[in-house]
Amino acid sequence: MRKILVCLPGNEILQNNISKILNIPIGDVDFHIFPDEETCIRLLFDCHNAEIIIIGSLDKPNKKMLPLILLAQTCRDLGAKKIGLVTPYLAYMRQDKRFQEGQGVSAGYFAKLISPFFDWLLCVSPHLHRIKNLNEIYTIPTFVLQATVEIANWIKLNVHHPLLIGPDSESEQWVESISKLANSPCFVLEKTRHGDKDVSIQMPDFKQWNSATPIIVDDIISSGQTLLTLAKQLVQAHFPPPICIGVHGLFAENAYAQLQLLGCEVITTNSIPHPSNKIDLSKLIATQLKSIQVD
Amino acid sequence: MRKILVCLPGNEILQNNISKILNIPIGDVDFHIFPDEETCIRLLFDCHNAEIIIIGSLDKPNKKMLPLILLAQTCRDLGAKKIGLVTPYLAYMRQDKRFQEGQGVSAGYFAKLISPFFDWLLCVSPHLHRIKNLNEIYTIPTFVLQATVEIANWIKLNVHHPLLIGPDSESEQWVESISKLANSPCFVLEKTRHGDKDVSIQMPDFKQWNSATPIIVDDIISSGQTLLTLAKQLVQAHFPPPICIGVHGLFAENAYAQLQLLGCEVITTNSIPHPSNKIDLSKLIATQLKSIQVD
Repeated sequence: MRKILVCLPGNEILQNNISKILNIPIGDVDFHIFPDEETCIRLLFDCHNAEIIIIGSLDKPNKKMLPLILLAQTCRDLGAKKIGLVTPYLAYMRQDKRFQEGQGVSAGYFAKLISPFFDWLLCVSPHLHRIKNLNEIYTIPTFVLQATVEIANWIKLNVHHPLLIGPDSESEQWVESISKLANSPCFVLEKTRHGDKDVSIQMPDFKQWNSATPIIVDDIISSGQTLLTLAKQLVQAHFPPPICIGVHGLFAENAYAQLQLLGCEVITTNSIPHPSNKIDLSKLIATQLKSIQVD
Repeated sequence: MRKILVCLPGNEILQNNISKILNIPIGDVDFHIFPDEETCIRLLFDCHNAEIIIIGSLDKPNKKMLPLILLAQTCRDLGAKKIGLVTPYLAYMRQDKRFQEGQGVSAGYFAKLISPFFDWLLCVSPHLHRIKNLNEIYTIPTFVLQATVEIANWIKLNVHHPLLIGPDSESEQWVESISKLANSPCFVLEKTRHGDKDVSIQMPDFKQWNSATPIIVDDIISSGQTLLTLAKQLVQAHFPPPICIGVHGLFAENAYAQLQLLGCEVITTNSIPHPSNKIDLSKLIATQLKSIQVD
């Protein structure tokens, strides 16, 4: 079946890179916004009998959801045989528990909303914590990639004598894999969250490592409060400002500027387009795409 | 089954009015927005075994869609037996045709997205044009109310010697019903649309009516270009600035200010909260809600 790549606005770099690696054509899409803020999708290519691969990261998901679904359904309506979603950043995965009485557990609701419109879903390093496997909530085949090799390679190429630090137990899965691949020491700390933007972190005695370059690794950089808190504690303990690596750089509010102000180098993958993108996921995603066969 | 009213932010007036008319309690909902712009719904009431009636107009639909669906699914998850959607303004109904090759026909896609999350849907004067009945696209029971009696009553109470004008053939269904109820003459004109904001209207010889107060009636006021064009033509033909009545006042960009600048009085129903709301839909909706029985 012939394949065609399309993307949501803002995902052109990944789309173009993957198109070149796999030699798959790109289908242009016009996303028209009417004065009343309704979206009108127009495919500028023929999708009849094709497999359409839609690339769209779902940061700031509320406003992207409807255009994404209208795009998928337009493809379906115009004859696409299969529609896959490559969403390097999969949204709503952190809402995996009823933290307070009366709360929704949105991860599952989001999955229920998405599943009917796609034949498969591919994402990178989703926040799997209480949900251990995406098939607990998604009813379509899902493909989960990890950016650990790409991150470890960046560290090996760019940092002499690294000391990897995971700010909390949820980061353990990324930090330990990366430390093995980068052959560097690693610590996973204990974090307590007091609110959306209020955290405290227990720091061990790192003195024997103070000639190393500290690298904090986390999956998602959102408000950046976890990284900022830990970076300040490291500077107080006479370390240089740490390198902060996130798989997904959401950078809510002015998180990026605050981290830079502290002297941190901030590094992310290009799962979400941002000036900090230094680690390219194109090859990782393209390699998986070659082997996806969904009947 | 006990009923509970809840609403999306911004729909409190209709919610409170209907609650008083029907003596149905209101369920408070906390719509928390995380720094990464994900929404977290928390019900501050017990919805177990209840029928939940969610009131939420869907103007600016893209950003409202996901909070609405998360709210419905949270209710379902926490034990609601039935969930109905009262959406006085139903979005995406104008995209009922493939106007250009490759375009999506979004009205149906939107219906497919909504239907799995609700047991029934109620709306006021939806833009039924090429789609003649909502059950062509919605798979759940739908209840369609018309605001014609309410609009006719406002005209009878407030305007001496009215002349009703429908700007185009799509407005015929509203204008003719209202003119009969208000016992006033009515004309339906011919409009040609050249773009989102570019229309021209053929105007007949109205001279014999120039002691009347012209009232333009339309279902949706979006960019307001149709009303502005016609209002200017009426003023040129020595009529006073017309009264502009819309069922749904979307008022894209500065449509409202432009109409007021021309001297028009602009009147809408409260399907979408706006300073121009002079016609209350609460009784109309409440009366229908009393009789909805969905098993």
